[in-house]
Amino acid sequence: MSEYTPPLNDIAFLLDHVTPMAGLTALDAYKGIDRDSVDGVLEEFGRLMSEVWAPTNAVGDHEGSHVEGDGVRTATGHGEAYRAYQEAGWGAVPFEEAYGGGGFPWMVGIVMQEMLNSANMALAMAPLLTQGAIDAILHHGSEQQKETYLLKMVSGEWTGTMNLTEPDAGSDVGALRTKAVPAGDGSYLISGQKIFITFGDHSFTDNIVHLVLARTPDAPAGTKGISLFIVPKFMVGDDGSLGARNDVHVVSVEHKMGIRASPTCVLAYGDNSDGAVGYLIGEENAGMRYMFTMMNNARLGVGVEGLGLAERSFQQALAYAKERKQGYAPGAARGEKSAIIEHPDVRRQLLTMKAYTESMRALCYKVAEQIDVARHAADDAERTAAQEMVDLLIPLTKSYCTDVAETVTSIGIQVHGGMGYIEETGAAQHYRDAKITQIYEGTNGIQAMDLVGRKLPMRAGGVYQDQLARMRTTAAELSSGGERLASVASELTAALDALEDATNWILGEGLADPVQALSAATPYQRLFATTVAGWLMAIQAAAAVKVIDAGDGSSAVAEAKLVSARFFARHLLPQVHGLVAPVKAGKEDLYALTADQI
Amino acid sequence: MSEYTPPLNDIAFLLDHVTPMAGLTALDAYKGIDRDSVDGVLEEFGRLMSEVWAPTNAVGDHEGSHVEGDGVRTATGHGEAYRAYQEAGWGAVPFEEAYGGGGFPWMVGIVMQEMLNSANMALAMAPLLTQGAIDAILHHGSEQQKETYLLKMVSGEWTGTMNLTEPDAGSDVGALRTKAVPAGDGSYLISGQKIFITFGDHSFTDNIVHLVLARTPDAPAGTKGISLFIVPKFMVGDDGSLGARNDVHVVSVEHKMGIRASPTCVLAYGDNSDGAVGYLIGEENAGMRYMFTMMNNARLGVGVEGLGLAERSFQQALAYAKERKQGYAPGAARGEKSAIIEHPDVRRQLLTMKAYTESMRALCYKVAEQIDVARHAADDAERTAAQEMVDLLIPLTKSYCTDVAETVTSIGIQVHGGMGYIEETGAAQHYRDAKITQIYEGTNGIQAMDLVGRKLPMRAGGVYQDQLARMRTTAAELSSGGERLASVASELTAALDALEDATNWILGEGLADPVQALSAATPYQRLFATTVAGWLMAIQAAAAVKVIDAGDGSSAVAEAKLVSARFFARHLLPQVHGLVAPVKAGKEDLYALTADQI
Repeated sequence: MSEYTPPLNDIAFLLDHVTPMAGLTALDAYKGIDRDSVDGVLEEFGRLMSEVWAPTNAVGDHEGSHVEGDGVRTATGHGEAYRAYQEAGWGAVPFEEAYGGGGFPWMVGIVMQEMLNSANMALAMAPLLTQGAIDAILHHGSEQQKETYLLKMVSGEWTGTMNLTEPDAGSDVGALRTKAVPAGDGSYLISGQKIFITFGDHSFTDNIVHLVLARTPDAPAGTKGISLFIVPKFMVGDDGSLGARNDVHVVSVEHKMGIRASPTCVLAYGDNSDGAVGYLIGEENAGMRYMFTMMNNARLGVGVEGLGLAERSFQQALAYAKERKQGYAPGAARGEKSAIIEHPDVRRQLLTMKAYTESMRALCYKVAEQIDVARHAADDAERTAAQEMVDLLIPLTKSYCTDVAETVTSIGIQVHGGMGYIEETGAAQHYRDAKITQIYEGTNGIQAMDLVGRKLPMRAGGVYQDQLARMRTTAAELSSGGERLASVASELTAALDALEDATNWILGEGLADPVQALSAATPYQRLFATTVAGWLMAIQAAAAVKVIDAGDGSSAVAEAKLVSARFFARHLLPQVHGLVAPVKAGKEDLYALTADQI
Repeated sequence: MSEYTPPLNDIAFLLDHVTPMAGLTALDAYKGIDRDSVDGVLEEFGRLMSEVWAPTNAVGDHEGSHVEGDGVRTATGHGEAYRAYQEAGWGAVPFEEAYGGGGFPWMVGIVMQEMLNSANMALAMAPLLTQGAIDAILHHGSEQQKETYLLKMVSGEWTGTMNLTEPDAGSDVGALRTKAVPAGDGSYLISGQKIFITFGDHSFTDNIVHLVLARTPDAPAGTKGISLFIVPKFMVGDDGSLGARNDVHVVSVEHKMGIRASPTCVLAYGDNSDGAVGYLIGEENAGMRYMFTMMNNARLGVGVEGLGLAERSFQQALAYAKERKQGYAPGAARGEKSAIIEHPDVRRQLLTMKAYTESMRALCYKVAEQIDVARHAADDAERTAAQEMVDLLIPLTKSYCTDVAETVTSIGIQVHGGMGYIEETGAAQHYRDAKITQIYEGTNGIQAMDLVGRKLPMRAGGVYQDQLARMRTTAAELSSGGERLASVASELTAALDALEDATNWILGEGLADPVQALSAATPYQRLFATTVAGWLMAIQAAAAVKVIDAGDGSSAVAEAKLVSARFFARHLLPQVHGLVAPVKAGKEDLYALTADQI
């Protein structure tokens, strides 16, 4: 079964050169944090992930989760792994000290998320959904709600869930029907059914805090009439003691293609009463607005899932390719067969996995860094610029990292040949797990609509222009960076030209006729995201050259980085040139037939 | 659960306009066959597939296959479905009448294979592997072997298997170790273990004919020392009666990501004796040569698996997208929500699935047609040209149809949103099933090596030049075909330019240094195959225009075809422009690091 080693070298390279930790620890909010403490956290946390969590991954896939009585039975070892994480206080690391948090940058939390997902993505969803719920209560809950729920959630003693989806309300959240009727005592009675509730039940902790979207009796239709409620599994007394069982119960657990250790529940609210007791967060009808404040973090989190799976899949394929011997590579002496990593096509596969994974890491970390800056920079303009960058990059990050995770984990199977198709090998699990990331938290099609419909038009295209300017600057710097950077510079420049060409079409034709923009959104999103990934790899190439030229003996990582950045530029980035025409093809062929003619 | 309707309209369009059945029935070998009889076969066979086979697909995936006692238990209804196929004599259709066959063109057999794979790909492997074994005995077996085994296999009363792989001999077949020792009576004693044996055991039929690669005692090393043997599960008497159980037994059945209804067996030969009794086919040490004669058919067959899965996945997604309502499509009146097929991005997904699937169908059928011509054309030169075309197109067809099947079935899940990830929906099965097609019968990386190492250099590039000339001719014809064909013509011309550019690099740099060609092989293969697919779609676009202009009232299919061909040209074909640079990037970045530095 596959092992997992936290990629601390590549992480350190990014924290040194691409998203410098020094920049974050200079912020007031993080002045108590230094690079050594970050490295210490990551090293120790990485050990838990590789030693305790990673070995549970295959077991969880094999056993899955099942309804048992009035609850859910999770897979062997998963409760223990969760509690080892919880008891060490790891869930608190990136939260404010005022609520029991560790006070570390969100950036550090994202690095930890990567490791969680590499180690056991399905199990990681318990703490990660909890982080989302924490976010909601932190920003919109009352002081009392924070005292009652937040402290226990930050400490990981209780987990949280997000209840949005209903059978007829998936991407169209506004269609939801769950009811919330005022009980007269300030609380509400919640009734309805929610589906796709991750870790909707389990026995890791003695309470679960459900955040539930529902409609009050006279709420307006659609997304403007949705309110957000806290519905605890067990009622909580004023002294914090647990009381009666609330009327929220698991109906069933889905039988999914992957992330099987994560119980995806159908939850029934109020089936045995007038309703489950719920507490309004903030104001009525503001639920969707509150969800939007969590959305960037949640979508980044899904991108990081793709990153985590890609890394694990890559490590497994690499180890196999070094060990497995078949045939003779070109030029190999006859005698012992060659390790398959020496065959050109296998090597191309592995470098594709590596370069893609590194590009995903850089993209996720860059967004995380900007989230921290947007929250805590002293300067207004700096905060605004960072927030704009986050808003623009979020759909790109979510879609790129999840689409590419599919590609990387598919190659991960392919490197194993026929053995990759056998479940015991473990390569297939990563591929099956990865598929959900393209779907949830807004399908990648929804991300593309968000990109062309909301993000590109921000400041009349100004936010895009700023990003383009950043990337042009990098390309210009590399162009004068000598022979080693020449191919990276020229390919990045060519990609930027393609991006400009496509964007101009979207901002022209696409703003004049939104159907044009929506028809072109998916290829445009991929083009844009791949270019941004190429930019971040180019930044790394330049940094690598500096490290190598400094010649202080620590250049092994930098030398490998320069190669993967060059590989990205020459083998992967050029695909953008195949996406310009599909963007400009627009809507014409899409609506030439009626639905019945298709 | 998803239904399946044989796509008889699109099949008929191809048999009319792209791979005209009239051309084949004009050949002496098929003079007893006419188009009506072909249509009759396809219609009736299609009914069995949709009514009897298709409903078993999900059951087979759910139940899988298991070892039970000394045999394999297959899933509910699979034996009945196989026997319904066998008793109607469908397996015999594309074989020579001299051996009990129906005497139909291989082309017709390939259309039937498509339907088999759409209906239940895992079950289809029982008859399809039998066809491979028939091929081997037909071409290389003795008259006695044909009488004893072939008749029963053509009739489907017995199935056949192919035993190549061993734990250390996968892609490197020459490394196999199974022994074959002459028994003194003309037979051999076979001992060893084979893995990945499809339908290595089952109880559909009362005998199974294993074809086994093994080494005789003094055989040369590598592929030159491999011989091919018939090893029946039950011995066959001179009168055709079944005798003693032979010493070949199933050890285990693999737990696979997909095609679960197909038992993938580990088979032990000679574990309880001096060896299982085997009979040499042809001559000693000629086994690999015999395998090569079957290879084209087998690889085409795997391409057709990709096609079949893509078609089924498309039908399911299309039905769902017409039924499922979410949100309002652009311009839709408020009131009833829109079917998701009206949303631009969903429509783009569906047209992508449709156009890709139609391109796969055209490619598979074109190769099948050329196989028939290569076998039966009266003219030597015509036969040679057809065989060359087959040899060139086989790696393209196998890799394209299986890589694209992954894409299409992935979109098939995506169209279903979260429901696609739930196994009961059935969309995920097609995706899981599809993954194996990229691996077996030579991984797609092996196909790429075959393309640049063996196929491109045929006749010093002359075979490629002939294919290029064919495609240039089509592009030229379309260029003068008026407005409706203009975009198809220009995109095809641009793709051909890209192909020429890349091919010139391979024939220059790549022939000078084979590592260059091998490093570039995979992106080159995709570029080439996509261009050929674009060519075949362009031919269909031109044919569609003719049908429409004839105005005889039967133009609905042609109108839809013109749109999907145009969609292919403008949305899918341009991806070739992203592949030229990766081809020309060659080996440089691949070997810049040692294996340990990666």
